[in-house]
Amino acid sequence: MTAGTAERLGVGLVGYAFMGAAHSQAWRTAGRFFDLPLTPDMAVLCGRDAAATAAAAEKMGWRTTETDWKALLRRDDVQLVDICTPGDTHAEIAVAALEAGKHVLCEKPLANTVDEARAMVAAAEKAQTKGVRSMVGFNYRRVPAVALARRLVEQGRIGQVRHVRAVYLQDWIVDPEFPLVWRLQAERAGSGALGDIGAHIVDMAQFVTGDRLTGVSALSETFVKERPLPQASSGLSASGSSERGPVTVDDAALFIGRFGGGAVASFEATRFATGRKNALRLEVNGSAGSLAFDFESMNELSFYDGTEDPDTAGFRRILTTEPTHPYAGAWWPPGHLLGYEHSFTHEVVDLVRDLAAGTDPTPSFADGLQVQEVLDAVVRSAAAGSGWQTISEES
Amino acid sequence: MTAGTAERLGVGLVGYAFMGAAHSQAWRTAGRFFDLPLTPDMAVLCGRDAAATAAAAEKMGWRTTETDWKALLRRDDVQLVDICTPGDTHAEIAVAALEAGKHVLCEKPLANTVDEARAMVAAAEKAQTKGVRSMVGFNYRRVPAVALARRLVEQGRIGQVRHVRAVYLQDWIVDPEFPLVWRLQAERAGSGALGDIGAHIVDMAQFVTGDRLTGVSALSETFVKERPLPQASSGLSASGSSERGPVTVDDAALFIGRFGGGAVASFEATRFATGRKNALRLEVNGSAGSLAFDFESMNELSFYDGTEDPDTAGFRRILTTEPTHPYAGAWWPPGHLLGYEHSFTHEVVDLVRDLAAGTDPTPSFADGLQVQEVLDAVVRSAAAGSGWQTISEES
Amino acid sequence: MTAGTAERLGVGLVGYAFMGAAHSQAWRTAGRFFDLPLTPDMAVLCGRDAAATAAAAEKMGWRTTETDWKALLRRDDVQLVDICTPGDTHAEIAVAALEAGKHVLCEKPLANTVDEARAMVAAAEKAQTKGVRSMVGFNYRRVPAVALARRLVEQGRIGQVRHVRAVYLQDWIVDPEFPLVWRLQAERAGSGALGDIGAHIVDMAQFVTGDRLTGVSALSETFVKERPLPQASSGLSASGSSERGPVTVDDAALFIGRFGGGAVASFEATRFATGRKNALRLEVNGSAGSLAFDFESMNELSFYDGTEDPDTAGFRRILTTEPTHPYAGAWWPPGHLLGYEHSFTHEVVDLVRDLAAGTDPTPSFADGLQVQEVLDAVVRSAAAGSGWQTISEES
Amino acid sequence: MTAGTAERLGVGLVGYAFMGAAHSQAWRTAGRFFDLPLTPDMAVLCGRDAAATAAAAEKMGWRTTETDWKALLRRDDVQLVDICTPGDTHAEIAVAALEAGKHVLCEKPLANTVDEARAMVAAAEKAQTKGVRSMVGFNYRRVPAVALARRLVEQGRIGQVRHVRAVYLQDWIVDPEFPLVWRLQAERAGSGALGDIGAHIVDMAQFVTGDRLTGVSALSETFVKERPLPQASSGLSASGSSERGPVTVDDAALFIGRFGGGAVASFEATRFATGRKNALRLEVNGSAGSLAFDFESMNELSFYDGTEDPDTAGFRRILTTEPTHPYAGAWWPPGHLLGYEHSFTHEVVDLVRDLAAGTDPTPSFADGLQVQEVLDAVVRSAAAGSGWQTISEES
Repeated sequence: MTAGTAERLGVGLVGYAFMGAAHSQAWRTAGRFFDLPLTPDMAVLCGRDAAATAAAAEKMGWRTTETDWKALLRRDDVQLVDICTPGDTHAEIAVAALEAGKHVLCEKPLANTVDEARAMVAAAEKAQTKGVRSMVGFNYRRVPAVALARRLVEQGRIGQVRHVRAVYLQDWIVDPEFPLVWRLQAERAGSGALGDIGAHIVDMAQFVTGDRLTGVSALSETFVKERPLPQASSGLSASGSSERGPVTVDDAALFIGRFGGGAVASFEATRFATGRKNALRLEVNGSAGSLAFDFESMNELSFYDGTEDPDTAGFRRILTTEPTHPYAGAWWPPGHLLGYEHSFTHEVVDLVRDLAAGTDPTPSFADGLQVQEVLDAVVRSAAAGSGWQTISEES
Repeated sequence: MTAGTAERLGVGLVGYAFMGAAHSQAWRTAGRFFDLPLTPDMAVLCGRDAAATAAAAEKMGWRTTETDWKALLRRDDVQLVDICTPGDTHAEIAVAALEAGKHVLCEKPLANTVDEARAMVAAAEKAQTKGVRSMVGFNYRRVPAVALARRLVEQGRIGQVRHVRAVYLQDWIVDPEFPLVWRLQAERAGSGALGDIGAHIVDMAQFVTGDRLTGVSALSETFVKERPLPQASSGLSASGSSERGPVTVDDAALFIGRFGGGAVASFEATRFATGRKNALRLEVNGSAGSLAFDFESMNELSFYDGTEDPDTAGFRRILTTEPTHPYAGAWWPPGHLLGYEHSFTHEVVDLVRDLAAGTDPTPSFADGLQVQEVLDAVVRSAAAGSGWQTISEES
Repeated sequence: MTAGTAERLGVGLVGYAFMGAAHSQAWRTAGRFFDLPLTPDMAVLCGRDAAATAAAAEKMGWRTTETDWKALLRRDDVQLVDICTPGDTHAEIAVAALEAGKHVLCEKPLANTVDEARAMVAAAEKAQTKGVRSMVGFNYRRVPAVALARRLVEQGRIGQVRHVRAVYLQDWIVDPEFPLVWRLQAERAGSGALGDIGAHIVDMAQFVTGDRLTGVSALSETFVKERPLPQASSGLSASGSSERGPVTVDDAALFIGRFGGGAVASFEATRFATGRKNALRLEVNGSAGSLAFDFESMNELSFYDGTEDPDTAGFRRILTTEPTHPYAGAWWPPGHLLGYEHSFTHEVVDLVRDLAAGTDPTPSFADGLQVQEVLDAVVRSAAAGSGWQTISEES
Repeated sequence: MTAGTAERLGVGLVGYAFMGAAHSQAWRTAGRFFDLPLTPDMAVLCGRDAAATAAAAEKMGWRTTETDWKALLRRDDVQLVDICTPGDTHAEIAVAALEAGKHVLCEKPLANTVDEARAMVAAAEKAQTKGVRSMVGFNYRRVPAVALARRLVEQGRIGQVRHVRAVYLQDWIVDPEFPLVWRLQAERAGSGALGDIGAHIVDMAQFVTGDRLTGVSALSETFVKERPLPQASSGLSASGSSERGPVTVDDAALFIGRFGGGAVASFEATRFATGRKNALRLEVNGSAGSLAFDFESMNELSFYDGTEDPDTAGFRRILTTEPTHPYAGAWWPPGHLLGYEHSFTHEVVDLVRDLAAGTDPTPSFADGLQVQEVLDAVVRSAAAGSGWQTISEES
């Protein structure tokens, strides 16, 4: 079905910073490379500052703007609300949107607290009975190498999973003069490295293994306790003033844990790994093979097949650009790499297809809640001298 | 200046296969991440098959279509013609477009023969006096790592260039049953691996070093002499029939050469390097340092600073995603990678800026001609038992 | 001073399996590449089985043999006892040797229990007052890349240490039919992966950072609970019988911890990381830079200098074969790699020089005890539901 | 058979610089890890300077010394002469030694000229009829990864060879003040980078493919034409005086060529590749797979199996330390790396086994002559404007 004849899907985006730009590019691009059963219409961009929102809408290609997200929910030309705001606003917007009959795509982490996340799941389950669907934006699942890793685990290529080893290393606040942006304030961001990037590796590890963490032991640290108050803040960069305020989130969080299927695991999220820019790394060792991934080489998956002859066994660097690889066939010939933004495009493609097919997109809000419960257990363990914390299995 | 208030630049694209898709994505995206002084309007897509062209236009987002490129030249809403057809048609279209007062972006190689290329340069120079500009599409110059390599050479960071080592390795026709697509036919493609991918490494090596080849000694080979005739051909893939025809281009071309500034060089282009998907590699060794690049890791540049203390000297893996890196600041935070298509977006950004500023874009048609003359010398040397062939310096 | 004129150092080696062979090669080679102030004399090889010991002595180049290590201590031609037996025998032999006035080089782990290790330290301290010296064999400290890492930290090149990340991954018992060799029996080996390879990363991390762990939270796992009883066991390989016995050591141990200087840390030791053969990896992130090492590429050190211009900052692959690198100048020209056994040769070189100079070799028995106390805290934490365990600072 | 009961093989080594040290370590070590049918006896070290030779003999462990290599040939306790002198002396010593009934191991390049090499082959063939054997020291054949590459080609794992790509990159004379050591003087060294390191890649490429070059087109360059005369020269390092002399060898040589079996090839040898310390690299692309090797990661072989499912196909990093890998089983457990010197140990092991078995060692002098003929063709082509030069097939 081509773009023109397909039914329209009106999208309203809330937020236009880093994530807003990524989602805009995804909505703009998805139908150009993939056959979509619905034609996304970039209908409304919503933000509080009218002028800034208008400028962003023009830059990013949104037809109209709103300054109140509640107004967005009343519009008939919007069937899906895409939430790209800081975590403290997710619950209120998402619940209202679902109640208004709008599909919801919500950026991760699902919420800043487990309670908020639970309310969102309840709303999602209620809406689902009316055909209104929801998805949480763990975009890294849609990197071809990560999706291939999942497929190989499902196919049994690495056997029984024994070890999960995941880190997400960044370094953008190593400088103690980097200002106190919203991501460093607990009341806005919920947590620091843990919720921002730790959430990604928890989701990715559980997605790739098809298994879930059952308990953790954790510690966290804030290396730089005070920072200059920001003068102007936008996304990840900002300039600081001479006044200082307390950093109220973690700079780094580390934990060890166990999966339901018997694997042991280690996780680390930090913004203080000097020189590591976006080193989201996952290694999974199984009884029959191993997989390794590093987002800084996101077009590659390392795979060790333990059933090979020892003479020629070795970690293979699979360039995940073959037509048979997940998502890759829609793009360029083999060896022509994809980038960060493509993960969002793939997310939108899968979501639109689910909406048209009437199937539930994944990861669901319940999946997002479960990640939140893992993060909560990490926080509790870190607060309790690293004592073991069990993760609720109900979700 | 925002998209809405900027003057419009009507674009007419000829061809909608692999390169057409890449250019379409570039025109669609450039203004969303970069501030452009002109607003690209994807006005017309031109192709010979009306139905296929219409479908492609809808898919790729072009407003209207034409089936005759001459009609395109008569349209007032087109200020720039973007040529993405096979090489045998470049000269005719480009010369006519320039004469019609249209700016031209022409895919590489500039032409299939030096004579054609010369005619194009003459037309470009004549048009330039009237403010009509032209550019040849060596997109790899706009990969951030490659642009950074050029900058470091310019800054003297590697000193005097001694060695240039460039290969472009692919493997998509290793299978002898892969059919005889147009890229394997001399009358359409001009040459094989040499013109298709060898042209890229010649341009890149000369661009990065800021120097030019003065002579070469070459050999070429066609490993598979006959292939199944194609039943349907589109871009790089096709299915074959039972009838066979002769492969009339090179499968691989190798040459050694000398640069004007004293460096010695080695080049190789092949489609028979099993397992190498798009290994466009360049290494430059200078008296004070070295640079290395591999497109299969396109977000990285390797740099060795020979002035460092031996204790800590080593090739650095620079992840070229910092705000200070060429083009990178317009996209995502550090460590969030770019892909193949971004090189085209950057090409369009630079071109649009030049058009608005009234400056000449690079690489020029003359640059394209000079690359063609290098390829011509390679062909002559290979035909003459690898004897040394001097490259004309006039261009 | 040449080999011939230097005073003789009679060496008696106890044990002739894997470690015995490595030490033999070290004693044989040290004086051939380094100027030694004492000439090692490979005087006696000691083992319980007379015939096997005689064969090993001839193979490995030891002049004479003994079957009782107590006899070894009575020999006047032995000034140094080199202990390469399983951990359960270290304490008894080392204490007796020190009391007999023999210098002692003892393989790691120093002992199987903290109590044994304390007794050894006491004996070492008493002997030291009489000029009798002791050293524990953490050979990886003497890999040039590791010694260079230590030097760079000491020079302040990475600033204040924030993160330590260490894993030691092997896969030699992934097969559940691999037999129950002594290394899998608690009464012989003390612990499993933890003591065997975890000890190495604890020592290396503390050595490189110049800091010590103050507390840990841990878990451990035995994936394969029963294995075939070995029919013949030697070193790491063996063939199994049809009878099975319980594996009484850990297959894997993971822990997180804190260093005295404020760094947070994560450690993992496992023999179940399919495809990882000897991946002893350490990464240290500091406020001004980072270091990374992987023994599977043991001639390389990765170094990121955070003070560099972002344009050219990146992890450098330092090939640690320059004349200025630790130990490297004694061997081959740059780029000619060293191997595993060289770390033992360097250990012997440093030890012999200390003996001649009358200085205390490092790591000392006290250093070995402190590592043992870390391992003990890991065991305690794992046994106590991952609760935090403080590491005694007295040692 | 153990060392003590095996028949003795008296070895006389001529030369004690870089190669002499490497061979000494090989003779000393071979029997300690491999079962040898003859026991090497390091009988005599031969050098012109009596005092320096005596010091070297003591350091390296040779029993006695001679200052005249002719005296060496008269000694009954010498059965094998190992020639580690500069290339201009190889022919005279080797021919005389063979005529004296001594087995000969001669370092590469076999000789400085084809004529000398022919004389050596003639002497070797004559001696061979009397059971006197000879070998040329292309030690890199005995790196496990290289031997494994050969095995995989023989097994047909990469199919028909299409491409050979070999470089040997060093940088030790990038500094124009590096003095004019013997390796930079044509009358001593024969040629520069070509004979010193180019010889290695020619031999390695032919060994791995099991095929031979039939013709080449070449160029060479001397970047630094004059250098300080050395004040004291030893091996690769030296200090310079204020007087200068002409460099009479090539700094770099590049050539393209064809193999008998249809492959095309590219070779480059240089000492001006800043930052590359010992980058001996070989890539071979075949119709069914590819192999790649880099000596700077000498324990690894990259292998691409083109018959794999595209989903999981990728270059494998084989760590060549498995018991099944060539030579590796005699050393350490998997993942414990070998170094440069081990290649010489393996060379000696194979040679000793051939001598005991009465079989001809490889590479033979005839193999060395053939490499010399390739180098000669390169020199001729470079001198003749890169014109094609056929390589004689008689050898």
